[in-house]
Amino acid sequence: MIGRLNHVAIAVPDLAKATERYRDMLGATVTQPEDLPEHGVTVVFIRLPNTNVELLHPLGDKSPIAPFLAKNPSGGLHHVCYEVEDINTAVEFLLATDTMRVLNPKPKIGAHGKPVVFLHPKDNDGVLTELEQA
Amino acid sequence: MIGRLNHVAIAVPDLAKATERYRDMLGATVTQPEDLPEHGVTVVFIRLPNTNVELLHPLGDKSPIAPFLAKNPSGGLHHVCYEVEDINTAVEFLLATDTMRVLNPKPKIGAHGKPVVFLHPKDNDGVLTELEQA
Repeated sequence: MIGRLNHVAIAVPDLAKATERYRDMLGATVTQPEDLPEHGVTVVFIRLPNTNVELLHPLGDKSPIAPFLAKNPSGGLHHVCYEVEDINTAVEFLLATDTMRVLNPKPKIGAHGKPVVFLHPKDNDGVLTELEQA
Repeated sequence: MIGRLNHVAIAVPDLAKATERYRDMLGATVTQPEDLPEHGVTVVFIRLPNTNVELLHPLGDKSPIAPFLAKNPSGGLHHVCYEVEDINTAVEFLLATDTMRVLNPKPKIGAHGKPVVFLHPKDNDGVLTELEQA
């Protein structure tokens, strides 16, 4: 089912500082910050040769990242995203086997404009897991 | 400086269950568990088309993963590892700029038989960061 690792997401308390660090200290290619109001985040992508790191910072009052940063003020690894060929087939399989809860069985459109679902971290070793249709 | 994402490491409380889940539920290719006594871990690799996920479970009394699992009993995202061309050049640069602490300035031999260093999570948004010579 899962294919490429699409990205690893890191919640950061200071997006400008984090971006500078990846660019100037770690020598990576970084994108301009992009506000995604419908997701409640501002994102910067660290472009690596084989995948991306997604830096996430809260945007607006109801950011889904805010509780994580309240609990982890220094920031931290937030989720991983794997690509799947067909999101509906993936969801149907997971629902049928009933061992990994799908937080949004009806896929929503993710940060890259593609349908995504999230799996409950408690069912996957404490790791919030996103599946994105490739 | 940083190149490919070599792996994302996840600490897991039950290695057999986690491996089964990635194989049977998420349909990934998994390796046989491998004991690395000198690192205090047993590892299983999830082979993805573009990178690896490394499942880590404590081995022995002084496992570096044990305190993490004591704090996060369900498991969780533990570290990320980026490839660098030359580990000594990377360390020299980081030591000279003095903004990201290198936990072991003298590289040690990592799980893949290559020299690695770890950077202090407090200097990188709470993310334990490994650099591995490619």
